[in-house]
Amino acid sequence: MEEASLSSSSSPRSPDGGPGGDRGQAFPKLQNDTFLRAAWGEATDYTPVWCMRQAGRYLKEFLDTRAGQDFFSTCRSPEACCELTLQPLRRFPLDAAIIFSDILVVPQALGLQVTMVPGKGPTFSAPLREEQDLDRLQTPVDVDQELGYVFQAITLTRQRLEGRVPLIGFSGAPWTLMSYMVEGGGSPTMAQAKRWLYQWPKASHRLLGLLTDVLVPYLVGQVAAGAQALQVFESHAGHLGPELFSEFALPYIRDVAKRVKAGLREAGLAPVPLIIFAKDGHYALEELAQSGYEVVGIDWKVDPALARERVGKSVTLQGNLDPCALYASEDRIGQLVERMLDAFGPQPHIANLGHGIYPDMDPAHVGAFVEAVHRHSRQLRRK
Amino acid sequence: MEEASLSSSSSPRSPDGGPGGDRGQAFPKLQNDTFLRAAWGEATDYTPVWCMRQAGRYLKEFLDTRAGQDFFSTCRSPEACCELTLQPLRRFPLDAAIIFSDILVVPQALGLQVTMVPGKGPTFSAPLREEQDLDRLQTPVDVDQELGYVFQAITLTRQRLEGRVPLIGFSGAPWTLMSYMVEGGGSPTMAQAKRWLYQWPKASHRLLGLLTDVLVPYLVGQVAAGAQALQVFESHAGHLGPELFSEFALPYIRDVAKRVKAGLREAGLAPVPLIIFAKDGHYALEELAQSGYEVVGIDWKVDPALARERVGKSVTLQGNLDPCALYASEDRIGQLVERMLDAFGPQPHIANLGHGIYPDMDPAHVGAFVEAVHRHSRQLRRK
Repeated sequence: MEEASLSSSSSPRSPDGGPGGDRGQAFPKLQNDTFLRAAWGEATDYTPVWCMRQAGRYLKEFLDTRAGQDFFSTCRSPEACCELTLQPLRRFPLDAAIIFSDILVVPQALGLQVTMVPGKGPTFSAPLREEQDLDRLQTPVDVDQELGYVFQAITLTRQRLEGRVPLIGFSGAPWTLMSYMVEGGGSPTMAQAKRWLYQWPKASHRLLGLLTDVLVPYLVGQVAAGAQALQVFESHAGHLGPELFSEFALPYIRDVAKRVKAGLREAGLAPVPLIIFAKDGHYALEELAQSGYEVVGIDWKVDPALARERVGKSVTLQGNLDPCALYASEDRIGQLVERMLDAFGPQPHIANLGHGIYPDMDPAHVGAFVEAVHRHSRQLRRK
Repeated sequence: MEEASLSSSSSPRSPDGGPGGDRGQAFPKLQNDTFLRAAWGEATDYTPVWCMRQAGRYLKEFLDTRAGQDFFSTCRSPEACCELTLQPLRRFPLDAAIIFSDILVVPQALGLQVTMVPGKGPTFSAPLREEQDLDRLQTPVDVDQELGYVFQAITLTRQRLEGRVPLIGFSGAPWTLMSYMVEGGGSPTMAQAKRWLYQWPKASHRLLGLLTDVLVPYLVGQVAAGAQALQVFESHAGHLGPELFSEFALPYIRDVAKRVKAGLREAGLAPVPLIIFAKDGHYALEELAQSGYEVVGIDWKVDPALARERVGKSVTLQGNLDPCALYASEDRIGQLVERMLDAFGPQPHIANLGHGIYPDMDPAHVGAFVEAVHRHSRQLRRK
């Protein structure tokens, strides 16, 4: 395992002319572009790997840094977000960092109060119950003012990463954010949010459009601040199915990609690869591959070889080890990684889990996962 | 809407020589065998329909009957189960009844204490935490003694149905029961149960085998008591994925079907159609169609036409309207039903929702669903 030199005392070096755009900011030169090359569909010496929720409660140092602090206060502290983002990089030779933040900072920017309740998860004090509740939302959102703390965290982290690996920014997709805003938190069925789609399709489209209008400048702003790739999480795709997804999720997913790309051009920023991860959206793989994203994330319920058949060769796939596989022995993790890499085959692939790391997982097993991806993918390329 | 004559004062009439087996018991003659004919793959005049959780909290009379009584006490009362089973039949011209019970009566029969906590769901007082906890299970189970109350409920209900429609019995599949027994209740990830599969595969197989050994006589006993079809619920298939499903779910699903069929033969009972419903098991449709069940249930995330392509013509499909579609207007429900029936096409189909009815749904919309299935399917057959 590589020991990182990711101290907090580093200072900016020469600007990075790589694929990640930056606006007049001097960032250290990127040393490992394997993740970005794979995201752009280029050949790499090995399969790059990162983990969803790699900065998380399974790390003792994460708990130490978070100790006693409210979750969303942490999100609003660029120093804390930077530190949490760098922690897993100090332990594991990951090929990308992802900024520590939360998808629910966007509903907050729209004026909704959200707290993280231990043992329960995110909780809205006043969810959207009726159509007229849309009038409570504070629009338009000045993203620099409302979400500037995320941009600051990204810029700081990009500096302190010292160019070691690229930094990923992210947001939730419109449907996923809408579902939280209506449900007021997690739900096994998302039935209240789906009730909106069936009962109030116009108000639903209004809300989804309004979210898209915030997400576009928010994602462009992340790139301006230093993000070198962007992932959009459609975490609640699994509640929809083909018909609702086509009407209420896919058009906004497409719109985000199209408008973010245009926004980057207008801002004079270099393009960055876009990743769409629609968890449990197995039924829409073909459409997702044509939705304007360079990378399509898949969960562990989809066979990688079948996924590749369905998406064609135009996109990079990302995923998809069952996160619970990290409960297996390190040897067994190695075998499961080999099977996964073999199934993905020679087309561009970014290794990841099919969902985030859980708090009770052993960091050594995360290390075993990362190491096995690097080792076996190098072996495959030698064949 | 048909008004039922399902009073509690009826007495047995002539025995039913139809497909449902019975052991020396005189049951009223079956008047509507549409559901059974479709289940056996035969042509029908219209598409039969029933709803998962058709006996549920969305019905005022259900709440009245259940009032003040503990959930599992209700399950242990044949009179209450019979009444709850018949209630939706009094309102809607459904083509099948399903006995009111719960899949967790089987873990109870194995000696685990389970209560239904309002607002939380089923809760085990002492879930299985470690491999050695298997020794706490009380095996072998005398199903007549431990689950005789279900058999009594079935016999009573079969009498009181007066042959109007067939009565479905059911159980959970081994993996789904195991996951509850390990988690101790619901869970968004089933991570603790999956930890067993990865860390203790041998103990997991032991538990799954032990559950199968209970399920076989339990399901055969339901048919002996009067059940005319059996549905096996693999409600937690969506947590597994192709590899874990092949190893820990499918073999037991197959084994249940094979051994139940053998058990019926040995007991001199006529065969009944078997239904497998693996929710979110989209990745295993082909395997499920070959697993020994006459009917494969699908959820609303699977396109019916694609499902038919994948399963071939050897099975009946059951499903798959999004339950949340019942939040739509009655007109819109009619349109959605038409689209669904068109997508299923002319092969044998039993209409259902892709999941149970939720408590806040309007009974009139359930009626609209049932009526639309009957109306449009009759129209399709005239073309």
